[in-house]
Amino acid sequence: MKTSTSTAAGPQGTALSRGSSVPLAQQLAQRYAERIRQSLLLPGARLPSVRECAQRHGVSPHTVVAAYDQLLAQGLLEARKQRGFFVRDGAAPAAPLATRGTRTPRAGGQAEKPLDASSLIRSMFQADPSSAPGLGTLPSEWLDQAMLQTTMRRVVAQSSDEDSLLLLQYGEPAGDERLRRALTRRLDDVGIVCSPGQILSTVGATHALDLITRNLLKPGDAVLVDEPGWAIEFARLTQAGMRLLPVPRGAEGPDLDVMARLVEQHGPRAYVTVSVLHNPTGNTLSLGAAHRILQLAEAGDFFIVEDDTYAFLAPNHLPRLSALDGLRRSIYVSGFSKILTPAFRVGYVAASPERINRLTEAKMLQTLTSSPLLERAVALCLEQGQLRRHAERVQDRLAAARQRVVRMALEAGCQFMAPPQGLFGWVDTGVDTERLAQRMLDAGWHISPGLMFSATRQPGTLMRLNFATAQDARFWRQLQRERDALQRA
Amino acid sequence: MKTSTSTAAGPQGTALSRGSSVPLAQQLAQRYAERIRQSLLLPGARLPSVRECAQRHGVSPHTVVAAYDQLLAQGLLEARKQRGFFVRDGAAPAAPLATRGTRTPRAGGQAEKPLDASSLIRSMFQADPSSAPGLGTLPSEWLDQAMLQTTMRRVVAQSSDEDSLLLLQYGEPAGDERLRRALTRRLDDVGIVCSPGQILSTVGATHALDLITRNLLKPGDAVLVDEPGWAIEFARLTQAGMRLLPVPRGAEGPDLDVMARLVEQHGPRAYVTVSVLHNPTGNTLSLGAAHRILQLAEAGDFFIVEDDTYAFLAPNHLPRLSALDGLRRSIYVSGFSKILTPAFRVGYVAASPERINRLTEAKMLQTLTSSPLLERAVALCLEQGQLRRHAERVQDRLAAARQRVVRMALEAGCQFMAPPQGLFGWVDTGVDTERLAQRMLDAGWHISPGLMFSATRQPGTLMRLNFATAQDARFWRQLQRERDALQRA
Repeated sequence: MKTSTSTAAGPQGTALSRGSSVPLAQQLAQRYAERIRQSLLLPGARLPSVRECAQRHGVSPHTVVAAYDQLLAQGLLEARKQRGFFVRDGAAPAAPLATRGTRTPRAGGQAEKPLDASSLIRSMFQADPSSAPGLGTLPSEWLDQAMLQTTMRRVVAQSSDEDSLLLLQYGEPAGDERLRRALTRRLDDVGIVCSPGQILSTVGATHALDLITRNLLKPGDAVLVDEPGWAIEFARLTQAGMRLLPVPRGAEGPDLDVMARLVEQHGPRAYVTVSVLHNPTGNTLSLGAAHRILQLAEAGDFFIVEDDTYAFLAPNHLPRLSALDGLRRSIYVSGFSKILTPAFRVGYVAASPERINRLTEAKMLQTLTSSPLLERAVALCLEQGQLRRHAERVQDRLAAARQRVVRMALEAGCQFMAPPQGLFGWVDTGVDTERLAQRMLDAGWHISPGLMFSATRQPGTLMRLNFATAQDARFWRQLQRERDALQRA
Repeated sequence: MKTSTSTAAGPQGTALSRGSSVPLAQQLAQRYAERIRQSLLLPGARLPSVRECAQRHGVSPHTVVAAYDQLLAQGLLEARKQRGFFVRDGAAPAAPLATRGTRTPRAGGQAEKPLDASSLIRSMFQADPSSAPGLGTLPSEWLDQAMLQTTMRRVVAQSSDEDSLLLLQYGEPAGDERLRRALTRRLDDVGIVCSPGQILSTVGATHALDLITRNLLKPGDAVLVDEPGWAIEFARLTQAGMRLLPVPRGAEGPDLDVMARLVEQHGPRAYVTVSVLHNPTGNTLSLGAAHRILQLAEAGDFFIVEDDTYAFLAPNHLPRLSALDGLRRSIYVSGFSKILTPAFRVGYVAASPERINRLTEAKMLQTLTSSPLLERAVALCLEQGQLRRHAERVQDRLAAARQRVVRMALEAGCQFMAPPQGLFGWVDTGVDTERLAQRMLDAGWHISPGLMFSATRQPGTLMRLNFATAQDARFWRQLQRERDALQRA
């Protein structure tokens, strides 16, 4: 994974080469072009000022101007009067698509800055965990490869049983029945009572959210979302024509007064939320807030999509909206990418029988079935308690990592916006995290600035930490240096 | 698979029980209710006349009237004046959905009879291959389970290699790179030259067709389709708001005069077709027809979706539209469900780099990635020539089965509408195949009447045969009996 070429500048930081036959301006232009191509600099991001860039790279302002000119000529940047240089919409490789790019509306539906979902997703697949202290998943070395191998071998061996033929058939459109039965027991552990007929397997939790968006909502519907929240969900909803209604979410959970007002003013059709270990804040709903949200849903007649992606990183007793509600107004979505492996692409949705019927019909037209092999593998991990034991080990390890990271973050001058829990910390760095992100990138570190999680595309001083991948002391030293430099600038 | 309870009436035929405490009318009503529930009788299908039903089951007309009355009361049937009894729309279990049911337009877009896609798909998953001589796939005993097991074991073992980590990662959004490289070589074998960057993996070929429909077409677009053709594709297109333009397809291929006229009149945006071993006719495009279709596409400025689902059952030299066209106007879709296994859900699309970019963006929002494990397994089967050798064995076995079935079909009085090739035969039985299907069902045989393949929902005397599953002489004897009875009636 991590290469051994780390330098004092950080795992991937490299200086411009003065001995090269390639002029410095061209080297600098190539470096930024490469970042734009890799979606490490997103459309709309501002480049450092000429003066700042010159200082950082130890070149003359003249060289920076020449580099920026090359990027302007290549159509990768645009200059905005009095404001500086910005990455152009459509500068990324999927250029033909950028015009289809998602416009994220403000509360009420007014379009603001573009949100390039594919850039965000592509960036998910590019960061090396060891240099990505803001990563969205557990690093792969935290997963249990031996358990996965053993389980897959058993599935393959069992598949030759007379009555199973798992390897040879489409499987059930609703999903492997053993998986669905195992899931009812798992859901029972977190207080959600349902039958296998109320469960539909999907190609990861993402597919479940996609099916819901396209089959239970229609273009023009208003949808409440958490702000900050999961940008890919914002992009999905916006691309499908929904109007986003962001509800501020902080240490106390969603702002229920704002939510009540939005419900009254806009009559939303749904609320999409992560109730437990919310991404990026780490906040978990209190019982009282959960109850109040369900009352609002009842009064305003909207449904709730509860995305419990981080379920296995949290204690079972934390309150799920779907447990209170009994899957009447709530639709529960979860998966196994964040605890077992993303390679299986197994997720699921639990809901009322009628909603499951509708979603099953839609799934059949889309993919007929999802792979019964991988679903059976998840079923075995659930049935035998292996997944539960693995999750307990991960929770313990994560608690230790969290303690360490919290200490280093506080020492580096960061403040936690919500009590540290689960995988993510949501911290205030005191400086613009978009600018910080670019300076850190020069040193080889990928951070996750607040802009990535904002439905209203607000830049600011916040960023997401991944407690598992932010344990390198070099990262924190570098962060402190860059932060100080930005505060002095 | 097949139970050993076969009787003289056929593998699953059972008579009404006279000794039972359940009245005969109720037994009869239950039998039809069950078939409707299982989508063995589709909405819109006509039940036998009272007289015919009484004869078949050896009961009085009075008993049949009482049974139909019960079904009417349960909302499963409707009576149409002078015409008889029909299965009601929405009688199937997914009743809440039926109102969202797809309306299939005539040429030009006028809605006609409803087409219940989910009933069709559900019926795919219910038939026992040994009693389904019209099945849409190879029966699972024709697949190579040992090869699949060995390959999966190797993938699991290799996944622990330092630099692969297949079991632990999302994989590439565009699909496993080794699979895409192996596919370029496979495509080269059938005359299609492209790079790995022109290939996108999908969750089965169905997912590829779904991505294309929803991202390269828009509601209101007119789309040319083959008539007869693949009903699930008709349903997908119609549900997404397209207007279908059916082009008659017979022994000579698509009727190019009709196609030219439709192009002129309706300006279609695309033509979706199976060029090689077309389902259900078995017809393969001639080189001349392929050339002419591309000329029409050029003149009318539409693109072609070439669904090569049965690719591995045909010789490589048969002409693909995408080979002639070089993936400029054509988009090539294929998968492995029909030759390797449907359990992997691995399909792919090959197209111009720009189209692949757009489809990749859409796939990422839908499922992020598809499973890299299963894609690698397919890559191994391709790389090592195992799949090619397996396909050759299947082709030989199928040729022998075809010879046998053709003989029996001709003896039973059926006529082939196109020269028998590949997996499917398209035969004229001389009697209404909707009525024939119900009589055969009484005897335990699931046939595939022409109505299932008609974009215009025309009943008729045609049906699809699966050469692999239509080899049972008892089926042909039964067919002959029922056919004779219908001709006498």
